[in-house]
Amino acid sequence: MTESLILHEDPRSGNCYKIRLTAALLGLPLETLQYDIMKGETRTPEFLANINRNGRIPVLQIGEGPNARFLPESNAACWYLASGSALIPEDRFAQADMLRWMFFEQYNHEPNVATLRFWLHFVGEANLSIQQSGQIMAKRVAGCEALRLMDEHLSRGDWMAGNSVTLADIALFAYTHVAEEGGFGLDDYPSLCRWLERVQALPGFVPMD
Amino acid sequence: MTESLILHEDPRSGNCYKIRLTAALLGLPLETLQYDIMKGETRTPEFLANINRNGRIPVLQIGEGPNARFLPESNAACWYLASGSALIPEDRFAQADMLRWMFFEQYNHEPNVATLRFWLHFVGEANLSIQQSGQIMAKRVAGCEALRLMDEHLSRGDWMAGNSVTLADIALFAYTHVAEEGGFGLDDYPSLCRWLERVQALPGFVPMD
Repeated sequence: MTESLILHEDPRSGNCYKIRLTAALLGLPLETLQYDIMKGETRTPEFLANINRNGRIPVLQIGEGPNARFLPESNAACWYLASGSALIPEDRFAQADMLRWMFFEQYNHEPNVATLRFWLHFVGEANLSIQQSGQIMAKRVAGCEALRLMDEHLSRGDWMAGNSVTLADIALFAYTHVAEEGGFGLDDYPSLCRWLERVQALPGFVPMD
Repeated sequence: MTESLILHEDPRSGNCYKIRLTAALLGLPLETLQYDIMKGETRTPEFLANINRNGRIPVLQIGEGPNARFLPESNAACWYLASGSALIPEDRFAQADMLRWMFFEQYNHEPNVATLRFWLHFVGEANLSIQQSGQIMAKRVAGCEALRLMDEHLSRGDWMAGNSVTLADIALFAYTHVAEEGGFGLDDYPSLCRWLERVQALPGFVPMD
Protein backbone atom coordinates (compact mmCIF):
# COMPACT_ATOMS: atom_id res chain seq x y z
CA MET A 1 0.00 0.00 0.00
CA THR A 2 1.87 3.07 -1.21
CA GLU A 3 -0.81 5.68 -0.62
CA SER A 4 -1.24 7.19 2.82
CA LEU A 5 -4.14 5.94 4.93
CA ILE A 6 -5.96 8.35 7.21
CA LEU A 7 -8.84 7.31 9.45
CA HIS A 8 -11.39 10.00 10.28
CA GLU A 9 -12.72 8.73 13.60
CA ASP A 10 -14.11 9.13 17.07
CA PRO A 11 -12.00 6.80 19.23
CA ARG A 12 -15.02 5.82 21.36
CA SER A 13 -16.74 4.32 18.30
CA GLY A 14 -16.51 0.58 17.79
CA ASN A 15 -17.05 1.11 14.07
CA CYS A 16 -13.84 3.17 13.99
CA TYR A 17 -12.00 0.64 16.13
CA LYS A 18 -12.72 -2.12 13.58
CA ILE A 19 -10.59 -0.28 11.06
CA ARG A 20 -7.77 0.39 13.51
CA LEU A 21 -7.77 -3.27 14.55
CA THR A 22 -7.73 -4.46 10.91
CA ALA A 23 -4.78 -2.17 10.12
CA ALA A 24 -2.94 -3.33 13.25
CA LEU A 25 -3.41 -7.03 12.49
CA LEU A 26 -2.11 -6.38 8.96
CA GLY A 27 0.78 -4.18 10.12
CA LEU A 28 -0.44 -1.24 8.00
CA PRO A 29 0.43 2.30 9.09
CA LEU A 30 -2.72 4.33 9.73
CA GLU A 31 -2.94 7.98 10.68
CA THR A 32 -5.99 9.15 12.60
CA LEU A 33 -7.92 12.42 12.68
CA GLN A 34 -10.30 12.69 15.59
CA TYR A 35 -13.80 14.13 15.79
CA ASP A 36 -16.22 14.41 18.70
CA ILE A 37 -19.56 13.07 17.49
CA MET A 38 -21.23 14.31 20.69
CA LYS A 39 -20.36 17.86 19.59
CA GLY A 40 -21.64 17.38 16.02
CA GLU A 41 -18.17 17.61 14.49
CA THR A 42 -19.14 15.20 11.69
CA ARG A 43 -22.16 17.33 10.70
CA THR A 44 -20.33 20.56 9.87
CA PRO A 45 -20.62 21.95 6.31
CA GLU A 46 -16.89 21.25 5.80
CA PHE A 47 -17.19 17.62 6.87
CA LEU A 48 -20.29 17.06 4.72
CA ALA A 49 -18.69 18.68 1.68
CA ASN A 50 -15.23 17.13 1.92
CA ILE A 51 -15.32 13.90 3.93
CA ASN A 52 -18.76 12.23 3.95
CA ARG A 53 -22.10 13.60 2.77
CA ASN A 54 -23.74 11.11 5.15
CA GLY A 55 -22.26 13.00 8.13
CA ARG A 56 -20.85 9.91 9.76
CA ILE A 57 -17.57 8.46 10.83
CA PRO A 58 -15.58 6.33 10.31
CA VAL A 59 -14.30 7.38 6.92
CA LEU A 60 -11.11 5.88 5.54
CA GLN A 61 -9.19 8.40 3.44
CA ILE A 62 -6.86 6.92 0.86
CA GLY A 63 -4.22 9.30 -0.42
CA GLU A 64 -4.03 13.05 0.10
CA GLY A 65 -4.69 16.25 -1.80
CA PRO A 66 -6.87 16.44 -4.91
CA ASN A 67 -6.59 12.71 -5.60
CA ALA A 68 -7.70 11.64 -2.12
CA ARG A 69 -10.53 9.10 -2.06
CA PHE A 70 -12.94 8.64 0.83
CA LEU A 71 -14.54 5.40 1.95
CA PRO A 72 -17.35 5.51 4.53
CA GLU A 73 -18.90 2.43 6.18
CA SER A 74 -16.64 0.63 8.61
CA ASN A 75 -16.92 -2.82 7.09
CA ALA A 76 -16.18 -1.53 3.58
CA ALA A 77 -13.07 0.23 4.89
CA CYS A 78 -11.93 -3.03 6.55
CA TRP A 79 -12.49 -4.81 3.24
CA TYR A 80 -10.33 -2.26 1.42
CA LEU A 81 -7.48 -2.64 3.90
CA ALA A 82 -7.63 -6.45 4.01
CA SER A 83 -8.04 -6.96 0.28
CA GLY A 84 -5.69 -9.76 -0.82
CA SER A 85 -4.76 -10.70 2.77
CA ALA A 86 -5.55 -13.80 4.83
CA LEU A 87 -8.25 -11.83 6.69
CA ILE A 88 -10.48 -12.45 3.66
CA PRO A 89 -10.86 -16.14 2.73
CA GLU A 90 -10.26 -17.02 -0.90
CA ASP A 91 -12.83 -19.82 -0.98
CA ARG A 92 -16.01 -18.62 -2.65
CA PHE A 93 -18.43 -19.84 0.01
CA ALA A 94 -16.24 -18.84 2.96
CA GLN A 95 -15.86 -15.34 1.52
CA ALA A 96 -19.61 -14.93 1.11
CA ASP A 97 -20.16 -16.44 4.56
CA MET A 98 -17.76 -13.88 6.04
CA LEU A 99 -19.78 -11.10 4.39
CA ARG A 100 -22.94 -12.74 5.71
CA TRP A 101 -21.74 -12.16 9.30
CA MET A 102 -20.60 -8.63 8.46
CA PHE A 103 -24.07 -7.78 7.15
CA PHE A 104 -25.56 -9.48 10.21
CA GLU A 105 -23.35 -7.22 12.31
CA GLN A 106 -24.68 -4.05 10.70
CA TYR A 107 -28.32 -5.17 10.64
CA ASN A 108 -28.89 -7.33 13.74
CA HIS A 109 -26.04 -6.51 16.11
CA GLU A 110 -24.89 -2.90 15.79
CA PRO A 111 -28.31 -1.19 15.91
CA ASN A 112 -29.00 -2.98 19.20
CA VAL A 113 -25.75 -3.74 21.00
CA ALA A 114 -23.90 -0.59 19.91
CA THR A 115 -26.89 1.75 20.12
CA LEU A 116 -27.70 0.76 23.70
CA ARG A 117 -24.04 1.31 24.62
CA PHE A 118 -24.18 4.75 23.03
CA TRP A 119 -27.45 5.68 24.70
CA LEU A 120 -26.74 4.31 28.18
CA HIS A 121 -22.96 4.79 28.47
CA PHE A 122 -22.39 8.06 26.56
CA VAL A 123 -25.69 9.94 26.24
CA GLY A 124 -27.08 8.79 29.59
CA GLU A 125 -30.51 7.29 30.18
CA ALA A 126 -31.85 10.54 31.69
CA ASN A 127 -31.03 12.43 28.49
CA LEU A 128 -32.78 10.08 26.07
CA SER A 129 -35.87 11.17 24.18
CA ILE A 130 -39.18 9.46 24.93
CA GLN A 131 -38.88 7.72 21.56
CA GLN A 132 -35.43 6.40 22.43
CA SER A 133 -36.47 5.25 25.91
CA GLY A 134 -39.40 3.43 24.34
CA GLN A 135 -37.04 1.41 22.18
CA ILE A 136 -34.70 0.22 24.94
CA MET A 137 -36.57 -3.00 25.68
CA ALA A 138 -36.90 -4.02 22.01
CA LYS A 139 -33.21 -3.32 21.45
CA ARG A 140 -32.32 -5.29 24.58
CA VAL A 141 -34.23 -8.33 23.32
CA ALA A 142 -32.83 -8.07 19.79
CA GLY A 143 -29.28 -7.51 21.06
CA CYS A 144 -29.48 -10.58 23.34
CA GLU A 145 -30.78 -12.58 20.39
CA ALA A 146 -27.80 -11.49 18.25
CA LEU A 147 -25.36 -12.45 21.03
CA ARG A 148 -27.13 -15.79 21.52
CA LEU A 149 -26.88 -16.54 17.80
CA MET A 150 -23.16 -15.75 17.83
CA ASP A 151 -22.62 -17.90 20.93
CA GLU A 152 -24.45 -20.81 19.38
CA HIS A 153 -22.43 -20.44 16.15
CA LEU A 154 -19.15 -20.21 18.07
CA SER A 155 -19.97 -23.39 20.00
CA ARG A 156 -19.33 -25.21 16.71
CA GLY A 157 -16.11 -23.52 15.57
CA ASP A 158 -13.38 -21.14 16.69
CA TRP A 159 -14.14 -18.34 14.22
CA MET A 160 -17.23 -16.75 12.71
CA ALA A 161 -16.47 -17.78 9.10
CA GLY A 162 -14.06 -20.28 7.57
CA ASN A 163 -11.29 -21.84 9.65
CA SER A 164 -9.29 -18.82 10.74
CA VAL A 165 -9.74 -15.23 11.84
CA THR A 166 -11.43 -13.04 9.23
CA LEU A 167 -12.99 -9.61 8.98
CA ALA A 168 -16.20 -11.13 10.35
CA ASP A 169 -14.47 -11.66 13.68
CA ILE A 170 -13.04 -8.14 13.71
CA ALA A 171 -16.39 -6.57 12.79
CA LEU A 172 -18.28 -8.47 15.50
CA PHE A 173 -15.57 -8.17 18.15
CA ALA A 174 -15.68 -4.36 18.16
CA TYR A 175 -19.02 -3.86 19.89
CA THR A 176 -19.33 -7.30 21.48
CA HIS A 177 -16.33 -6.88 23.76
CA VAL A 178 -17.79 -3.65 25.18
CA ALA A 179 -21.41 -4.87 25.22
CA GLU A 180 -21.47 -4.66 29.02
CA GLU A 181 -21.29 -0.87 28.68
CA GLY A 182 -24.73 -1.17 27.07
CA GLY A 183 -26.04 -3.31 29.91
CA PHE A 184 -25.57 -6.69 28.22
CA GLY A 185 -24.20 -9.41 30.50
CA LEU A 186 -21.91 -11.81 28.66
CA ASP A 187 -21.82 -14.60 31.26
CA ASP A 188 -24.62 -16.45 29.49
CA TYR A 189 -22.51 -16.81 26.35
CA PRO A 190 -19.49 -19.00 27.20
CA SER A 191 -18.44 -19.81 23.62
CA LEU A 192 -18.61 -16.13 22.75
CA CYS A 193 -16.43 -15.27 25.77
CA ARG A 194 -13.77 -17.77 24.70
CA TRP A 195 -13.85 -16.27 21.21
CA LEU A 196 -13.31 -12.77 22.64
CA GLU A 197 -10.15 -14.11 24.31
CA ARG A 198 -9.03 -15.71 21.04
CA VAL A 199 -9.34 -12.39 19.23
CA GLN A 200 -7.49 -10.57 22.03
CA ALA A 201 -4.63 -13.10 21.76
CA LEU A 202 -4.04 -12.49 18.03
CA PRO A 203 -0.54 -11.28 17.08
CA GLY A 204 -0.70 -7.53 16.51
CA PHE A 205 -3.96 -7.10 18.47
CA VAL A 206 -4.54 -3.57 19.76
CA PRO A 207 -7.14 -2.67 22.38
CA MET A 208 -9.91 -0.13 21.73
CA ASP A 209 -8.56 2.63 23.98
CA MET B 1 -21.84 -23.19 -11.18
CA THR B 2 -22.43 -26.94 -11.07
CA GLU B 3 -24.27 -27.16 -7.77
CA SER B 4 -27.99 -26.46 -7.65
CA LEU B 5 -29.11 -23.10 -6.31
CA ILE B 6 -32.30 -22.87 -4.27
CA LEU B 7 -33.66 -19.62 -2.88
CA HIS B 8 -35.74 -19.84 0.28
CA GLU B 9 -37.89 -16.74 -0.06
CA ASP B 10 -41.04 -14.74 0.41
CA PRO B 11 -41.70 -13.20 -3.02
CA ARG B 12 -42.97 -9.95 -1.46
CA SER B 13 -39.57 -9.34 0.15
CA GLY B 14 -37.19 -6.97 -1.60
CA ASN B 15 -34.29 -8.75 0.09
CA CYS B 16 -35.33 -11.95 -1.69
CA TYR B 17 -35.85 -10.12 -4.97
CA LYS B 18 -32.22 -8.88 -4.93
CA ILE B 19 -31.05 -12.48 -5.24
CA ARG B 20 -33.52 -13.34 -8.00
CA LEU B 21 -32.48 -10.23 -9.92
CA THR B 22 -28.78 -11.01 -9.53
CA ALA B 23 -29.30 -14.56 -10.79
CA ALA B 24 -31.41 -13.28 -13.71
CA LEU B 25 -28.81 -10.70 -14.77
CA LEU B 26 -26.16 -13.43 -14.65
CA GLY B 27 -28.32 -16.01 -16.41
CA LEU B 28 -28.04 -18.46 -13.50
CA PRO B 29 -30.81 -21.00 -12.94
CA LEU B 30 -32.39 -20.54 -9.52
CA GLU B 31 -35.10 -22.64 -7.92
CA THR B 32 -37.32 -21.03 -5.33
CA LEU B 33 -39.07 -22.34 -2.22
CA GLN B 34 -41.68 -19.99 -0.86
CA TYR B 35 -42.58 -19.12 2.72
CA ASP B 36 -45.17 -16.74 4.14
CA ILE B 37 -43.41 -14.57 6.71
CA MET B 38 -46.76 -13.15 7.85
CA LYS B 39 -47.69 -16.68 8.98
CA GLY B 40 -44.39 -17.27 10.81
CA GLU B 41 -43.25 -19.93 8.36
CA THR B 42 -39.59 -18.94 8.86
CA ARG B 43 -39.81 -19.36 12.64
CA THR B 44 -40.82 -23.01 12.75
CA PRO B 45 -38.50 -25.46 14.57
CA GLU B 46 -37.75 -27.14 11.22
CA PHE B 47 -36.75 -23.88 9.55
CA LEU B 48 -34.61 -22.81 12.52
CA ALA B 49 -32.88 -26.19 12.68
CA ASN B 50 -32.31 -26.77 8.98
CA ILE B 51 -32.32 -23.47 7.07
CA ASN B 52 -31.44 -20.48 9.24
CA ARG B 53 -31.11 -20.26 13.01
CA ASN B 54 -31.82 -16.52 12.67
CA GLY B 55 -35.37 -17.33 11.47
CA ARG B 56 -35.17 -15.09 8.43
CA ILE B 57 -35.34 -15.25 4.71
CA PRO B 58 -33.81 -14.98 2.18
CA VAL B 59 -31.48 -17.93 2.48
CA LEU B 60 -29.54 -19.15 -0.55
CA GLN B 61 -29.09 -22.92 -0.49
CA ILE B 62 -26.12 -24.22 -2.47
CA GLY B 63 -26.31 -27.89 -3.29
CA GLU B 64 -28.70 -30.49 -1.90
CA GLY B 65 -28.74 -33.31 0.60
CA PRO B 66 -26.18 -33.72 3.37
CA ASN B 67 -23.64 -31.45 1.63
CA ALA B 68 -26.04 -28.54 1.17
CA ARG B 69 -24.76 -25.21 2.42
CA PHE B 70 -26.95 -22.30 3.50
CA LEU B 71 -26.21 -18.62 3.10
CA PRO B 72 -28.44 -16.07 4.87
CA GLU B 73 -28.24 -12.28 4.35
CA SER B 74 -29.39 -11.07 0.96
CA ASN B 75 -26.27 -9.10 0.07
CA ALA B 76 -23.96 -11.99 0.96
CA ALA B 77 -26.04 -14.32 -1.26
CA CYS B 78 -25.76 -11.82 -4.13
CA TRP B 79 -21.99 -11.71 -3.58
CA TYR B 80 -21.79 -15.50 -3.79
CA LEU B 81 -23.74 -15.60 -7.06
CA ALA B 82 -21.84 -12.72 -8.66
CA SER B 83 -18.38 -13.82 -7.55
CA GLY B 84 -16.02 -13.50 -10.52
CA SER B 85 -18.60 -11.70 -12.68
CA ALA B 86 -18.73 -8.12 -13.96
CA LEU B 87 -21.31 -7.30 -11.27
CA ILE B 88 -18.38 -7.05 -8.82
CA PRO B 89 -15.67 -4.58 -9.92
CA GLU B 90 -12.11 -5.89 -9.85
CA ASP B 91 -10.55 -2.56 -8.93
CA ARG B 92 -9.73 -2.51 -5.22
CA PHE B 93 -11.34 0.84 -4.42
CA ALA B 94 -14.40 0.30 -6.63
CA GLN B 95 -15.01 -3.09 -4.99
CA ALA B 96 -14.83 -1.61 -1.49
CA ASP B 97 -16.98 1.32 -2.62
CA MET B 98 -19.60 -1.11 -3.91
CA LEU B 99 -19.63 -2.82 -0.50
CA ARG B 100 -19.88 0.62 1.10
CA TRP B 101 -23.24 1.17 -0.61
CA MET B 102 -24.38 -2.36 0.23
CA PHE B 103 -23.68 -1.76 3.93
CA PHE B 104 -25.39 1.63 3.61
CA GLU B 105 -28.37 -0.21 2.17
CA GLN B 106 -28.65 -2.53 5.17
CA TYR B 107 -27.98 0.15 7.79
CA ASN B 108 -29.49 3.40 6.49
CA HIS B 109 -31.96 2.39 3.79
CA GLU B 110 -33.59 -0.97 4.50
CA PRO B 111 -34.55 -0.37 8.17
CA ASN B 112 -36.41 2.76 7.08
CA VAL B 113 -37.58 2.43 3.48
CA ALA B 114 -38.32 -1.31 3.63
CA THR B 115 -39.67 -1.35 7.16
CA LEU B 116 -42.22 1.40 6.45
CA ARG B 117 -43.32 -0.49 3.33
CA PHE B 118 -43.77 -3.64 5.42
CA TRP B 119 -45.63 -1.85 8.20
CA LEU B 120 -47.89 0.33 6.03
CA HIS B 121 -48.42 -1.88 2.96
CA PHE B 122 -48.52 -5.39 4.44
CA VAL B 123 -49.18 -5.18 8.19
CA GLY B 124 -51.44 -2.11 7.97
CA GLU B 125 -51.12 1.03 10.07
CA ALA B 126 -54.09 0.06 12.27
CA ASN B 127 -52.35 -3.17 13.26
CA LEU B 128 -49.04 -1.64 14.35
CA SER B 129 -47.97 -1.67 17.98
CA ILE B 130 -47.69 1.63 19.82
CA GLN B 131 -43.91 1.23 19.67
CA GLN B 132 -43.99 0.79 15.91
CA SER B 133 -46.35 3.72 15.35
CA GLY B 134 -44.05 5.88 17.45
CA GLN B 135 -41.16 5.13 15.10
CA ILE B 136 -42.92 6.01 11.84
CA MET B 137 -41.86 9.65 11.78
CA ALA B 138 -38.21 8.91 12.59
CA LYS B 139 -38.12 6.22 9.90
CA ARG B 140 -39.77 8.59 7.43
CA VAL B 141 -37.08 11.23 8.03
CA ALA B 142 -34.22 8.71 7.89
CA GLY B 143 -35.63 7.03 4.77
CA CYS B 144 -35.97 10.37 2.96
CA GLU B 145 -32.40 11.19 3.95
CA ALA B 146 -31.17 7.87 2.47
CA LEU B 147 -33.05 8.55 -0.77
CA ARG B 148 -31.71 12.11 -0.91
CA LEU B 149 -28.16 10.87 -0.45
CA MET B 150 -28.62 8.35 -3.28
CA ASP B 151 -30.14 11.02 -5.54
CA GLU B 152 -27.28 13.39 -4.87
CA HIS B 153 -24.76 10.62 -5.56
CA LEU B 154 -26.53 9.60 -8.78
CA SER B 155 -26.51 13.19 -10.03
CA ARG B 156 -22.76 12.71 -10.50
CA GLY B 157 -22.72 9.27 -12.17
CA ASP B 158 -24.91 6.63 -13.74
CA TRP B 159 -24.28 3.89 -11.17
CA MET B 160 -23.79 3.67 -7.42
CA ALA B 161 -20.18 2.40 -7.58
CA GLY B 162 -17.60 2.28 -10.35
CA ASN B 163 -18.58 2.89 -13.97
CA SER B 164 -21.11 0.14 -14.59
CA VAL B 165 -23.91 -1.74 -12.89
CA THR B 166 -22.81 -3.61 -9.78
CA LEU B 167 -24.38 -5.40 -6.84
CA ALA B 168 -24.72 -2.00 -5.14
CA ASP B 169 -27.30 -1.02 -7.76
CA ILE B 170 -29.18 -4.31 -7.38
CA ALA B 171 -29.19 -4.11 -3.58
CA LEU B 172 -30.49 -0.53 -3.54
CA PHE B 173 -32.93 -0.97 -6.42
CA ALA B 174 -34.93 -3.65 -4.63
CA TYR B 175 -36.63 -1.51 -2.00
CA THR B 176 -36.19 1.87 -3.71
CA HIS B 177 -38.37 0.99 -6.68
CA VAL B 178 -41.27 0.08 -4.37
CA ALA B 179 -40.63 2.88 -1.85
CA GLU B 180 -43.98 4.46 -2.71
CA GLU B 181 -45.67 1.46 -1.06
CA GLY B 182 -44.11 2.76 2.15
CA GLY B 183 -45.40 6.26 1.55
CA PHE B 184 -42.22 7.71 0.07
CA GLY B 185 -42.72 9.99 -2.92
CA LEU B 186 -39.93 9.71 -5.46
CA ASP B 187 -40.70 12.85 -7.48
CA ASP B 188 -38.20 14.86 -5.46
CA TYR B 189 -35.35 12.61 -6.58
CA PRO B 190 -34.94 12.99 -10.38
CA SER B 191 -31.48 11.44 -10.68
CA LEU B 192 -32.66 8.47 -8.66
CA CYS B 193 -35.72 8.05 -10.92
CA ARG B 194 -33.52 8.00 -14.04
CA TRP B 195 -31.32 5.37 -12.35
CA LEU B 196 -34.39 3.21 -11.62
CA GLU B 197 -35.12 3.28 -15.36
CA ARG B 198 -31.51 2.37 -16.17
CA VAL B 199 -31.71 -0.69 -13.94
CA GLN B 200 -35.07 -1.71 -15.43
CA ALA B 201 -33.53 -1.50 -18.93
CA LEU B 202 -30.69 -3.92 -18.16
CA PRO B 203 -30.54 -7.05 -20.35
CA GLY B 204 -31.99 -9.95 -18.38
CA PHE B 205 -33.87 -7.68 -15.93
CA VAL B 206 -36.80 -9.35 -14.18
CA PRO B 207 -39.50 -7.47 -12.27
CA MET B 208 -40.25 -8.16 -8.61
CA ASP B 209 -43.63 -9.80 -9.13
